[in-house]
Amino acid sequence: MTEPPDALPDGGRRARTGIPEIVFAEGKPAGRTLSLLAELRRLDPDGPALATRCPAPVLDAAPDAFPGEDVTVDPVGRTVTVGAVPPGRGDVLVLTAGTTDLPVARECAATLAALGVGVRLLPDVGVAGLHRLLSRLEDVRRADVVVVVAGMDGALPGVVAGLVAAPVIGLPTSVGYGVAEGGRAALTTMLAACSPGVVVVNIDNGVGAAAHAAKVLRVRHG
Amino acid sequence: MTEPPDALPDGGRRARTGIPEIVFAEGKPAGRTLSLLAELRRLDPDGPALATRCPAPVLDAAPDAFPGEDVTVDPVGRTVTVGAVPPGRGDVLVLTAGTTDLPVARECAATLAALGVGVRLLPDVGVAGLHRLLSRLEDVRRADVVVVVAGMDGALPGVVAGLVAAPVIGLPTSVGYGVAEGGRAALTTMLAACSPGVVVVNIDNGVGAAAHAAKVLRVRHG
Amino acid sequence: MTEPPDALPDGGRRARTGIPEIVFAEGKPAGRTLSLLAELRRLDPDGPALATRCPAPVLDAAPDAFPGEDVTVDPVGRTVTVGAVPPGRGDVLVLTAGTTDLPVARECAATLAALGVGVRLLPDVGVAGLHRLLSRLEDVRRADVVVVVAGMDGALPGVVAGLVAAPVIGLPTSVGYGVAEGGRAALTTMLAACSPGVVVVNIDNGVGAAAHAAKVLRVRHG
Amino acid sequence: MTEPPDALPDGGRRARTGIPEIVFAEGKPAGRTLSLLAELRRLDPDGPALATRCPAPVLDAAPDAFPGEDVTVDPVGRTVTVGAVPPGRGDVLVLTAGTTDLPVARECAATLAALGVGVRLLPDVGVAGLHRLLSRLEDVRRADVVVVVAGMDGALPGVVAGLVAAPVIGLPTSVGYGVAEGGRAALTTMLAACSPGVVVVNIDNGVGAAAHAAKVLRVRHG
Amino acid sequence: MTEPPDALPDGGRRARTGIPEIVFAEGKPAGRTLSLLAELRRLDPDGPALATRCPAPVLDAAPDAFPGEDVTVDPVGRTVTVGAVPPGRGDVLVLTAGTTDLPVARECAATLAALGVGVRLLPDVGVAGLHRLLSRLEDVRRADVVVVVAGMDGALPGVVAGLVAAPVIGLPTSVGYGVAEGGRAALTTMLAACSPGVVVVNIDNGVGAAAHAAKVLRVRHG
Amino acid sequence: MTEPPDALPDGGRRARTGIPEIVFAEGKPAGRTLSLLAELRRLDPDGPALATRCPAPVLDAAPDAFPGEDVTVDPVGRTVTVGAVPPGRGDVLVLTAGTTDLPVARECAATLAALGVGVRLLPDVGVAGLHRLLSRLEDVRRADVVVVVAGMDGALPGVVAGLVAAPVIGLPTSVGYGVAEGGRAALTTMLAACSPGVVVVNIDNGVGAAAHAAKVLRVRHG
Amino acid sequence: MTEPPDALPDGGRRARTGIPEIVFAEGKPAGRTLSLLAELRRLDPDGPALATRCPAPVLDAAPDAFPGEDVTVDPVGRTVTVGAVPPGRGDVLVLTAGTTDLPVARECAATLAALGVGVRLLPDVGVAGLHRLLSRLEDVRRADVVVVVAGMDGALPGVVAGLVAAPVIGLPTSVGYGVAEGGRAALTTMLAACSPGVVVVNIDNGVGAAAHAAKVLRVRHG
Amino acid sequence: MTEPPDALPDGGRRARTGIPEIVFAEGKPAGRTLSLLAELRRLDPDGPALATRCPAPVLDAAPDAFPGEDVTVDPVGRTVTVGAVPPGRGDVLVLTAGTTDLPVARECAATLAALGVGVRLLPDVGVAGLHRLLSRLEDVRRADVVVVVAGMDGALPGVVAGLVAAPVIGLPTSVGYGVAEGGRAALTTMLAACSPGVVVVNIDNGVGAAAHAAKVLRVRHG
Repeated sequence: MTEPPDALPDGGRRARTGIPEIVFAEGKPAGRTLSLLAELRRLDPDGPALATRCPAPVLDAAPDAFPGEDVTVDPVGRTVTVGAVPPGRGDVLVLTAGTTDLPVARECAATLAALGVGVRLLPDVGVAGLHRLLSRLEDVRRADVVVVVAGMDGALPGVVAGLVAAPVIGLPTSVGYGVAEGGRAALTTMLAACSPGVVVVNIDNGVGAAAHAAKVLRVRHG
Repeated sequence: MTEPPDALPDGGRRARTGIPEIVFAEGKPAGRTLSLLAELRRLDPDGPALATRCPAPVLDAAPDAFPGEDVTVDPVGRTVTVGAVPPGRGDVLVLTAGTTDLPVARECAATLAALGVGVRLLPDVGVAGLHRLLSRLEDVRRADVVVVVAGMDGALPGVVAGLVAAPVIGLPTSVGYGVAEGGRAALTTMLAACSPGVVVVNIDNGVGAAAHAAKVLRVRHG
Repeated sequence: MTEPPDALPDGGRRARTGIPEIVFAEGKPAGRTLSLLAELRRLDPDGPALATRCPAPVLDAAPDAFPGEDVTVDPVGRTVTVGAVPPGRGDVLVLTAGTTDLPVARECAATLAALGVGVRLLPDVGVAGLHRLLSRLEDVRRADVVVVVAGMDGALPGVVAGLVAAPVIGLPTSVGYGVAEGGRAALTTMLAACSPGVVVVNIDNGVGAAAHAAKVLRVRHG
Repeated sequence: MTEPPDALPDGGRRARTGIPEIVFAEGKPAGRTLSLLAELRRLDPDGPALATRCPAPVLDAAPDAFPGEDVTVDPVGRTVTVGAVPPGRGDVLVLTAGTTDLPVARECAATLAALGVGVRLLPDVGVAGLHRLLSRLEDVRRADVVVVVAGMDGALPGVVAGLVAAPVIGLPTSVGYGVAEGGRAALTTMLAACSPGVVVVNIDNGVGAAAHAAKVLRVRHG
Repeated sequence: MTEPPDALPDGGRRARTGIPEIVFAEGKPAGRTLSLLAELRRLDPDGPALATRCPAPVLDAAPDAFPGEDVTVDPVGRTVTVGAVPPGRGDVLVLTAGTTDLPVARECAATLAALGVGVRLLPDVGVAGLHRLLSRLEDVRRADVVVVVAGMDGALPGVVAGLVAAPVIGLPTSVGYGVAEGGRAALTTMLAACSPGVVVVNIDNGVGAAAHAAKVLRVRHG
Repeated sequence: MTEPPDALPDGGRRARTGIPEIVFAEGKPAGRTLSLLAELRRLDPDGPALATRCPAPVLDAAPDAFPGEDVTVDPVGRTVTVGAVPPGRGDVLVLTAGTTDLPVARECAATLAALGVGVRLLPDVGVAGLHRLLSRLEDVRRADVVVVVAGMDGALPGVVAGLVAAPVIGLPTSVGYGVAEGGRAALTTMLAACSPGVVVVNIDNGVGAAAHAAKVLRVRHG
Repeated sequence: MTEPPDALPDGGRRARTGIPEIVFAEGKPAGRTLSLLAELRRLDPDGPALATRCPAPVLDAAPDAFPGEDVTVDPVGRTVTVGAVPPGRGDVLVLTAGTTDLPVARECAATLAALGVGVRLLPDVGVAGLHRLLSRLEDVRRADVVVVVAGMDGALPGVVAGLVAAPVIGLPTSVGYGVAEGGRAALTTMLAACSPGVVVVNIDNGVGAAAHAAKVLRVRHG
Repeated sequence: MTEPPDALPDGGRRARTGIPEIVFAEGKPAGRTLSLLAELRRLDPDGPALATRCPAPVLDAAPDAFPGEDVTVDPVGRTVTVGAVPPGRGDVLVLTAGTTDLPVARECAATLAALGVGVRLLPDVGVAGLHRLLSRLEDVRRADVVVVVAGMDGALPGVVAGLVAAPVIGLPTSVGYGVAEGGRAALTTMLAACSPGVVVVNIDNGVGAAAHAAKVLRVRHG
């Protein structure tokens, strides 16, 4: 059997699609994640390299693994960013329905930051206490794009999209039990939202929501 | 083979459980539905007899089929009530998220009326335009029980339950398409609602929501 | 990235909806659960603060964590109640089909107690030995509300609802294997129950069933 | 392309397995069903030939299609039996939960009759009015085998199996709506029944339940 | 029972969210759809009124039903637009994988046009013949936003998102059979797409994809 | 809150239904399982007491836990039988498709033995090597009842039922991966078997298959 | 909106992949199907053009719609072939489990014929009467490739693959009811088949099975 | 109870079907796997014996467990091959979409090698960076058979099948999260692929794909 290399890193992805290749660290040995980050940093020096879903050994080893580089570690969102984070342009607001949705929200926020997008986080404004959202409506309305992170019933994105004009991205999380276990309930609620224009990404896919938001902010307008 | 009677009507169900036997007319020949109504009226004269999911032939024939009886027909909710509707006690509010949820809401309302419960109907206050609900909040808050009828994303019951103290019954409808087709999305959203205390009945089960609301109003309190 | 507080505790929920915010402790660090209990106790002193799904470290630490407070710990139901439990009003009966449904039943009972509702527990009266239920029918019939806890086939709530006039709340549990694994079979059985008026909450949602029962007991009757 | 015959009728199946080949008429042209009945009658003259799920044209044409033969038509169960029905041996009781389950129950009963098994039918004894079953318990207990036909929640077989010593066969029907649509809810309830020894056949499979009951009655005992 | 109006049209939705209320005509009587269009035209005169999923009677009656108004009817996309279509700003490209996806694509295109967005349509460039897409790559790359419409395997959006920098919206259709029936296969493929940044709307939801694209084009950039 | 006993053991179940209450040991503390066995032995001395799904501590402790009693432990089938096993009457053959189905088959066999039924076991005769079954056909054909245990594709019961006249009970196992994970594929295959008369029990439910087989052997024949 | 052509027929697909573009006629107007056949015949004259899933109007009109061309119509398999069918090379055997699987089997056979592959058809050899298959084993064993068409339990491909050395393609059909409705049961059975090497195509996808078989016959061997 | 042997190894399977019995080691004790390998080596000496899904103890013990035999261990693919690997005939290319699909791809490759088939491996050519595949198209086109291994969206096999004439086998993996968890999304995408002729095996079934490819290479051509 011929023995090929295991991976073909895609160093041109940032130029081609606007989003660089990002290391999905879950299930990879820590050493492999770190060497992939170094390789992407070398192949694509125009921005920082990012790894997500990092297990503890990666989070622990990262600060010392890239001498001479800025390294940013978020232990809640489980992300590692290698290289200077560019200044944030635009204004993306990341809302969460509950506090347990925070890890996914922070993965999204770290990805936005690595992509050079300005980001604000506003957790725990779910529909069980609607006043928490309504009292911050002006803050919400001035965002360019709103990412709404929710598990359980996933009802928040539809409510937000009925209140603001900005594009709303629904980001379902696997938080929940019973019929909500694994995030399918939140996902289908968001897809079926009555407010037109809510778009949805895969469950727990903070990177996907951030990548779309970043692309939206780069659209050339007439 | 021995040949038994096809049905064993349960004339004592009202006395035993508070809810009389109700004829589910879908898939039954019109003549059979009408004769079952007559038989229940005879076995259980303490209140009107009710048939739900009535196809057109039943709705058309009912007014002339019970000489000397009050007959109430609702062509939208597809119900037929035979016998005088008792005065309504208590105050149950039936909300709908959209106008297409109205047939299920009206089945629920007609059942409540036949059970002697006071009922108000407030359609089309879904979360895509939240001001419609918020501007009527006082009307909603004075209800004893709130039934919330919704298809598509089924988000409304959780929002209502975060705003009022009355018991909230979620009544999912089969209105929807794509992931919402058949009402499963609305059902799971309601079951996963973050506001504690939302209870749920089967999809399109207006009778079940009404029966529970009627039982709630009869609880003896300390 | 702006750094907001992680949580926005909803101290007014008891006044607004009749049910205070309750801490869902699963997946939270023990310290966080305990501090949330303290914070809710401070924001909303009108009744005890409750945490459910408590892992062992919370159950162990709770008795000494709130000096000067009554603390009630149920290791089977995995609940912690901080503050004096009010006297119970009304009479809610919590039935279980089997002994393995007991943890969910006790979560429900502890929530009812914290909400100031009187509660009786009657375990192991499933349909495989119907005489166990039938011989206690008088006890069942004098309850104001009946919560029926069942896993596996979930058949018990429909049977109970055919025998009593009180409102029946079906509380499916994740107890079961094969097609019953995770509680979906019990849930759908309850939703499809032939006895009208059975309402259902999410799988293992003892809090939700208790919250609804408490709201029912507070309905003002005409 | 070589052109083979379309069907290879299995005339030896009765001798080999105790159950003859039975024509499933749904979706077949009427002429084809009738000729298959004739062919099976010829290949396997030791008992009557049976067709199930017969559409109206087959039910209408059957009486005149087999000159010199006994022909039995059941328009409710949609069966056609060609050839003398043998005397019934043993005692199989077919219970139904509701009246809408009757067509499947009658398909089962007609199959039992064609297989030479004695059959009694007892419809409409579902758990919503348990007294209907309990008052007939002696009748139920003297059966050799009990087939319990139920749609919606499918709770009846588990209840029956807790009350009698005879083998209980659960026969779920597609009667139901919402989560019960198509019969899956009834099927899973029966599979998860807490009473050990309930066995189950496919949804609406009256033939399968009958075939098993007939085989049970032929077991040689020590 | 009090008798409320059936609908509470939301004339302020365009101002609040950027997207006016749109009539979903499926299942509504033709007369009702036409009167709702007239009412929305009156309540919200700042842009045309749109109805989607229009059955034949609506498509036939629309041209003569609004005297003095521009009326645009698309019998393939089943849309009716009442009022002058504004000039299109920006450039949204709507791709389809196959020709049978065209009705959903045209619903999307008509919605974009009614919202004042410039739109190009490019059908039948699915992955089974990849050269059809690759040979038009320059055309695809100059779009501001790309909507990719696909049924069956739903593989096209992920492929497109790996080739262009514009935001990509996946719009799954119910075109397909076997495991692809109803569009769930296409939906999950798009949600699981390996190319980050693909967002998805509900199956056959041409309106939702268009609403999101229109919102994207209105984002104010820094 | 009133404090009831946790369990209501059903000592009359053997007399009523022919099958005694059986302890399901999974998830129970070892001490509780052992005391339940002792209690059932006392309440129902007419036959041995049985516990299934026993974890290692129960299997280890059982031999010394019941002084003066016969104790039978099967570590593969994970069963403990307390009390003398009665002589086996009748002849039930338990076939398995593969060797990994053996634990479920042995649970079934131990249950049959405890119920006083004669049992033979024949493992590893799946359809991938059909000659293994065909060469033992005479052995199979002389059984009174055949239990066929299979995971993965679950094809074996339908094949067996086409070859023998005895009643065939399909017992699906959770053995499998991919689409077969958890046993649903095997279950649906058995329910859909083309050979009429195959009945099915829940996945991994060796007790259920044994209980039905034992009931079949007790049927009084005419 | 720019108005593009609706379709981009892929005339080079036969050269590129070995399989020409094939018209899927379901849901298309008859005229469009016929014109697509003509266009493909013109673009790709190296072999006949094929349409599948043809509704009656296409089957009726086809013989006269292509003057000067050979036209082959199969009303059972619902295929239309335009152009001379090439001589068949190789030997593909198409087995069916039942007679109702014949339409899918004939779609497969017609596709094979159009692709220049020799084909034999052997219907109705399902596992309920295994002797039908075993008695023809020599015929089966001399085939180059075996396509096994089955609905209901889908058990036949696994049995065949345990008996022959040729590649076996499982082709599940939507024939079935209850748990087998729509073909999912047959599909999962085939995917989980214990005999290694069974490959599967989508439900009712006769074209896909034929295309793979044709490709297999063209492999250049060492 | 009679005590039979646990297993009936099928030493004639290679002769009968072309594929020897292969040991599935997952869930088996290491000693049992090793002794089964030894037994198969003895019963069927015409080729090496293979075990797949080997846990670490088997991988560690294998090299020293078969004195005098060639032993090949692949710790990534988790396979053990005992006996000399025959020279590879033909050319099967195994592609993967991502690097995490590699273990399944290597199980497939090791199986092909043990079956005497030539194999090349080309990892990480998924559709998110299509140039990686397109730049190697000549390498892909010269393969006799292509196995395409993919998790997540499973889009790659359909793309490959539109580009090459060789038979394409889709091998879905359980790699993925959210809607892609467990591999069902990849599986349905492959089954619904628009490119005709893609065949599919069970999720993670590297052995099945290899067995089919090996059978394809042995077809005798006319």
